Amino acid sequence: MKTIDVQLAENAYPVYLGQDLLTQADLWHRHLGTGKVLIVSNDVVGPLYLDALTNTLAGRDLEVHTLPDGEQFKTLETWSGIIDRLVSMQARRDASIIALGGGVVGDMSGFAAASYMRGIRFLQAPTTLLAQVDASVGGKTGVNHVRGKNLIGAFHQPSTVIIDTNTLNTLEAREFNAGMAEVVKYGAINDPGFFAWLEASAERINKRDPDALNELIEQSVLNKADIVRQDEKEAGVRALLNFGHSFGHALEAETGYSKFLHGEAVAIGMVTAARLSENRGLCPPGATRRLKTLLQTFNLPVSIPADTDMAGMAEALKLDKKAVASGLRLILLNSLGSAQVDQDSSTEDIMQAMNESLN
Amino acid sequence: MKTIDVQLAENAYPVYLGQDLLTQADLWHRHLGTGKVLIVSNDVVGPLYLDALTNTLAGRDLEVHTLPDGEQFKTLETWSGIIDRLVSMQARRDASIIALGGGVVGDMSGFAAASYMRGIRFLQAPTTLLAQVDASVGGKTGVNHVRGKNLIGAFHQPSTVIIDTNTLNTLEAREFNAGMAEVVKYGAINDPGFFAWLEASAERINKRDPDALNELIEQSVLNKADIVRQDEKEAGVRALLNFGHSFGHALEAETGYSKFLHGEAVAIGMVTAARLSENRGLCPPGATRRLKTLLQTFNLPVSIPADTDMAGMAEALKLDKKAVASGLRLILLNSLGSAQVDQDSSTEDIMQAMNESLN
Repeated sequence: MKTIDVQLAENAYPVYLGQDLLTQADLWHRHLGTGKVLIVSNDVVGPLYLDALTNTLAGRDLEVHTLPDGEQFKTLETWSGIIDRLVSMQARRDASIIALGGGVVGDMSGFAAASYMRGIRFLQAPTTLLAQVDASVGGKTGVNHVRGKNLIGAFHQPSTVIIDTNTLNTLEAREFNAGMAEVVKYGAINDPGFFAWLEASAERINKRDPDALNELIEQSVLNKADIVRQDEKEAGVRALLNFGHSFGHALEAETGYSKFLHGEAVAIGMVTAARLSENRGLCPPGATRRLKTLLQTFNLPVSIPADTDMAGMAEALKLDKKAVASGLRLILLNSLGSAQVDQDSSTEDIMQAMNESLN
Repeated sequence: MKTIDVQLAENAYPVYLGQDLLTQADLWHRHLGTGKVLIVSNDVVGPLYLDALTNTLAGRDLEVHTLPDGEQFKTLETWSGIIDRLVSMQARRDASIIALGGGVVGDMSGFAAASYMRGIRFLQAPTTLLAQVDASVGGKTGVNHVRGKNLIGAFHQPSTVIIDTNTLNTLEAREFNAGMAEVVKYGAINDPGFFAWLEASAERINKRDPDALNELIEQSVLNKADIVRQDEKEAGVRALLNFGHSFGHALEAETGYSKFLHGEAVAIGMVTAARLSENRGLCPPGATRRLKTLLQTFNLPVSIPADTDMAGMAEALKLDKKAVASGLRLILLNSLGSAQVDQDSSTEDIMQAMNESLN
């Protein structure tokens, strides 16, 4: 087991990484409060791992709340169902929520933990690659609004993140690949060495070689923690983590949050943003092709579907929360391994890059 | 105009106190961000003061969102209407919300400001005495759940609080008196001199003498700021501010949030808690009578209505968020001007004090 200490200004918490962690009782008891425990999971992950976790927590005053699986259920209504459950079990301020599942489970139960009685304890047990490398660091919680992703939420840091890498064994290929999109992102924006390592290790990764996966998760968590530490409330450098996300969010909104997994939309968004960077001369030629090739190695989509309503996407981009009043704020590449915040793209530049990304 | 600097660990902000502040443009522009502005008010306060405030903010990209008046509308549904409005006006992270109204408007728009895009700027313009002396310091925001008050919410400090004391001229007597309950509370828990001043100044206060009101608001804000500063997240001494609130909340819940104003329920709750303190020998005899007399001077109710379902109240108390697992945590008096957190009351003690408080 590895322990990565995430040190933030106001909070510090450990991320544990290894096999069989769902059954290590001491780890869990160390980080749970004294009160009641609500495990929030979904109907896909729950049947696989709930037994192991509830056995580990035997003796605790514990309930399980199961959500339907899927980004389309990341709504105020589902969130309010978690709140109702906390109320009906008479959870108090000393209660804890454990999120057992992917990013959707984590985001919604995190926002429930942030807002129930103005904040209770929150433990993350991410079971997808995406949640392990992305959602477990940063404290972002939230739900979608019909007009935009994550428009409602809070910053709420977990007490701990416990990553049992065994859970990746049952993760279906499409979900695994979607997680790889965020992994590639860390290389693209911040770490040229890691990007090259991913190119060299693609075959081992696709075979889910345990050592390669451990290395990949650890490097991703370290990269993200490093960026978040510099900027907990996302005013500056942390924005780089949104590389590919403005286009990705717009595409998700335009396709009703049902066609693409988040990571798939981000993969397409990163290629679009790289293309815009190249078109504007910010980044040397060839970066887009190299990024596209690596993403395709992980079977990720890299083009906007031909039937997408581009006017709708443009409208969705205006509302994206990464924007500020003065112009659309995008993360663009300087090179593979370095990115910047940019607000100088014209609407024409943006539409051209999107059109060139059409399938 | 007086300026009270509220100094908290993570945030510091000024509370301005005086006449005609709604029309002092420089004050408002100094604290608003660069983005769009949403004024949230209600259908009673709005018609009285919205014109003045929107004139003051002429030139701003501004919208007004009007809520129905009353604690019974302090729900997730009303809150989600504010969120929808922010979305439809395409508010971004640089937007500000101004709460123009009483505690309900402040609590709900504060929670909207806390959770829209994980937090935008929030300015308070409290127009009731209760909101001026209570809600303007502490950063508590939230909405009610059908099973308990303020079960959903966040801590979100305002950028500033602007108290235009002219707004008290139009405040109806019942609302004014309800605010006096919280004012009396500061004396009872923390400031024997202020308690005595209130007894001596009751006549001037009831005539709404401007100097008496200014003194009363300033002393209340200073008392509350002093307590909050010691304990921003309500783990210790801040709990004293809940004097009378556990019983008050239970009574409000049991009567559907429609029979009593918050301050009225707190008045009854304080008398019940004082009685419990005396019964248990924690507080010298006579304190309950003196407290009751002062509250009655301000025309506040001091008894639980005869037809109240006491079993329902007992059940509501169990869920009250001021409770922790080990027993009902209540604020009890050591004397008039000093209070303590106590968890040693038996169910019998508590029921007895409630029964003795029955009308």
